[in-house]
Amino acid sequence: MTEHLTHFDAAGQAHMVDVGAKAETHRIAVATGSIRMKPETLALILSGTAKKGDVLGIARIAAIMASKRTADLIPLCHPLALTRVAVDFTTDEASSAVHCRAQVETYGKTGVEMEALTAVQVGLLTIYDMCKAVDRGMAMTDIRVTEKAGGKSGDWKA
Amino acid sequence: MTEHLTHFDAAGQAHMVDVGAKAETHRIAVATGSIRMKPETLALILSGTAKKGDVLGIARIAAIMASKRTADLIPLCHPLALTRVAVDFTTDEASSAVHCRAQVETYGKTGVEMEALTAVQVGLLTIYDMCKAVDRGMAMTDIRVTEKAGGKSGDWKA
Amino acid sequence: MTEHLTHFDAAGQAHMVDVGAKAETHRIAVATGSIRMKPETLALILSGTAKKGDVLGIARIAAIMASKRTADLIPLCHPLALTRVAVDFTTDEASSAVHCRAQVETYGKTGVEMEALTAVQVGLLTIYDMCKAVDRGMAMTDIRVTEKAGGKSGDWKA
Amino acid sequence: MTEHLTHFDAAGQAHMVDVGAKAETHRIAVATGSIRMKPETLALILSGTAKKGDVLGIARIAAIMASKRTADLIPLCHPLALTRVAVDFTTDEASSAVHCRAQVETYGKTGVEMEALTAVQVGLLTIYDMCKAVDRGMAMTDIRVTEKAGGKSGDWKA
Amino acid sequence: MTEHLTHFDAAGQAHMVDVGAKAETHRIAVATGSIRMKPETLALILSGTAKKGDVLGIARIAAIMASKRTADLIPLCHPLALTRVAVDFTTDEASSAVHCRAQVETYGKTGVEMEALTAVQVGLLTIYDMCKAVDRGMAMTDIRVTEKAGGKSGDWKA
Amino acid sequence: MTEHLTHFDAAGQAHMVDVGAKAETHRIAVATGSIRMKPETLALILSGTAKKGDVLGIARIAAIMASKRTADLIPLCHPLALTRVAVDFTTDEASSAVHCRAQVETYGKTGVEMEALTAVQVGLLTIYDMCKAVDRGMAMTDIRVTEKAGGKSGDWKA
Repeated sequence: MTEHLTHFDAAGQAHMVDVGAKAETHRIAVATGSIRMKPETLALILSGTAKKGDVLGIARIAAIMASKRTADLIPLCHPLALTRVAVDFTTDEASSAVHCRAQVETYGKTGVEMEALTAVQVGLLTIYDMCKAVDRGMAMTDIRVTEKAGGKSGDWKA
Repeated sequence: MTEHLTHFDAAGQAHMVDVGAKAETHRIAVATGSIRMKPETLALILSGTAKKGDVLGIARIAAIMASKRTADLIPLCHPLALTRVAVDFTTDEASSAVHCRAQVETYGKTGVEMEALTAVQVGLLTIYDMCKAVDRGMAMTDIRVTEKAGGKSGDWKA
Repeated sequence: MTEHLTHFDAAGQAHMVDVGAKAETHRIAVATGSIRMKPETLALILSGTAKKGDVLGIARIAAIMASKRTADLIPLCHPLALTRVAVDFTTDEASSAVHCRAQVETYGKTGVEMEALTAVQVGLLTIYDMCKAVDRGMAMTDIRVTEKAGGKSGDWKA
Repeated sequence: MTEHLTHFDAAGQAHMVDVGAKAETHRIAVATGSIRMKPETLALILSGTAKKGDVLGIARIAAIMASKRTADLIPLCHPLALTRVAVDFTTDEASSAVHCRAQVETYGKTGVEMEALTAVQVGLLTIYDMCKAVDRGMAMTDIRVTEKAGGKSGDWKA
Repeated sequence: MTEHLTHFDAAGQAHMVDVGAKAETHRIAVATGSIRMKPETLALILSGTAKKGDVLGIARIAAIMASKRTADLIPLCHPLALTRVAVDFTTDEASSAVHCRAQVETYGKTGVEMEALTAVQVGLLTIYDMCKAVDRGMAMTDIRVTEKAGGKSGDWKA
Repeated sequence: MTEHLTHFDAAGQAHMVDVGAKAETHRIAVATGSIRMKPETLALILSGTAKKGDVLGIARIAAIMASKRTADLIPLCHPLALTRVAVDFTTDEASSAVHCRAQVETYGKTGVEMEALTAVQVGLLTIYDMCKAVDRGMAMTDIRVTEKAGGKSGDWKA
């Protein structure tokens, strides 16, 4: 790991880091996160997914679309042509939560952690949006990168 | 609070809810969230803010800009002309975290919780992006709405 | 109806027409359109909607989101804050087609026909995208405005 | 041709399909479509194109720009760096219509049919927008892919 | 005129200024700017405008569309629903330049200077793009606001 | 240099030029420009940069983000995955101006002059936005490409 923040040059000014000399390799990143809610809210989501009012199906689409907008949102993030985006939700009645896992891949010069995290964030935000009329107190939590492959720094798991 | 998910019609199909008949009132929403990191990472952010390499200044700009893109990201969210966006970061050495608070306001027919949450999410994501070279394990957490004012449902605090 | 193209000034130059003096009224537009396909393709869509692989649910989300991007796509279209968007699909085995109907509303100074048409177009395009691996020859057809209410020109039905 | 919808995984959940292992080849797609209108409307367009008020010139620019936004609009569409976009309009007094043809090319891992179709759709929508004050009843029709080259499935003509 | 920069709060942190209490008035802004080029380049533009290859017609569309994206580009700029955008180009053989003038209007809580300037900038950039193959040395210059009406500060001319 | 405008085909119709056969080479472009202002305005910027209210830091972020949106703004510009963006501001008390220099790089089939110019334009616009409350008469000027490397036409300096 480097010991300074690479997004700043020697004068402390932000820049979009030069990745031109990096190899184009197969890059994979996985991010996860959760949204905690009242048991009644989770019950509504579960009934909808099975029958009608598919909250998680809509959140999945929002998550996938957001991953493609990452470089528009994160100032110093390089634009990348993603080759795969998969988003899964798991409902967890024990902890009254929905868990989200996004896996993003590309063949490129930089990693796709930010794209995976953005997918998770917007997936959870969309669940919040669709359920907020019944549960304002939902909290999104534990959003992090859990796996990374490809690139000079090699494979990594949290 | 309603007892069903208003983003679905009677047949269970998603729609952008009709807010045409709602009053245009002054709407305020506050959202908060945190990113936890290694103490060394926080130390780097703190040294940068004071002198050069202003991580939090850049994250604030990203957060404000993202709040204006909310309706592009969240499928059933109404577009709104925001009249104020303020984003504050607090560094917390005791818990080795940065806390973010976003306050968004408008005069409109729907609330601005989603815009406040989006600001917090993208503010935290930007911190992650700028520090990930030194600390991959950072986690974003406790992202929630804490205050809401205006509209039929009245004032609310978490 | 006017007898010249209002998007051009006296010198024939394009402009975004001045609507400043128009009244803010309740505006509604309905647009419809269809995509014709092979019976086997429609059968795949129908089986997916009921059980898994919800083509029409995804197309609905794409259509709603696209309606919010209309002024980004159509050069001389005024930006408008939509207050309602509803998109319905009907499957039609007799003509081996899916029909789309979008209703868009706002309270504003100009009509929302373009937003309704954009929703229909992108809804149909999304169906094409999801089914093109099995049926390249699908055709989108009969995309038009069928109803319009509000504004100086009053109510209209095709 | 495959016999299931590849945009869904085994569990029926939508994903952006993995194209990482596909070859980067020269891809070409051609799409066409028409907008039918009253003869007087076509006459207005024809007079404008020759002299002033260039409806088709503006529609061409809108079509080209829209092709670059395709992955923003179509949820499961891969982002691609287009290497060529050409859009032609033909006026047809016999059938009182304008025909649009878009040819899009890239060197990439997936085809560009969606980009060609999006160009046609937005080209026709822009004509509708500019002429709707004189002819609300215009209809967009027969929008389809007519040619495709490159990629594993090889060349194809409708 | 105020004597400090209103985009910063008392602690020096950037925010999107609160305009909620401002009156919605009719706001107009005019901006101008020029691009200087070789006489041969101007001759090419002039021949194209008359006959074919309409550089200025395309630049006008780009300018109008960009004015609608202003709040996406300028971090602390409020989103506004524009009610009129007009962009004019004047060719000037004496100084071998094209002059651009953009007039933007809205009924809103803040002025539209930034929208008028953005229209001019992108109009000039588009001319640069279309002529750069024959004249790399073109320069854009004297881009400024020349008129402003509406709002508390009243009318102003440069 | 070519002697006609390559963005038009033989019939004078605009197109996004075919770059498919061009080599992917390392491309660099540098653009510069200035904003002239009252000495008091420059003094405010200088005091802010040192202590609080960092106008130039925010303008740098806006410039970098805008370079990534170039193909959305300029109609016939090819989308490109940038590999480096660096933006520098120099304050110039002698001429009461801020100078901006943007360097953009990619490995691709077309040059990045438009991306560098867009960064400069939006960087200067953001300075205008943040200082306009104290100085409406600021002018942006001398925006041009100063260096270009890579591609068939080889290296070039203004």
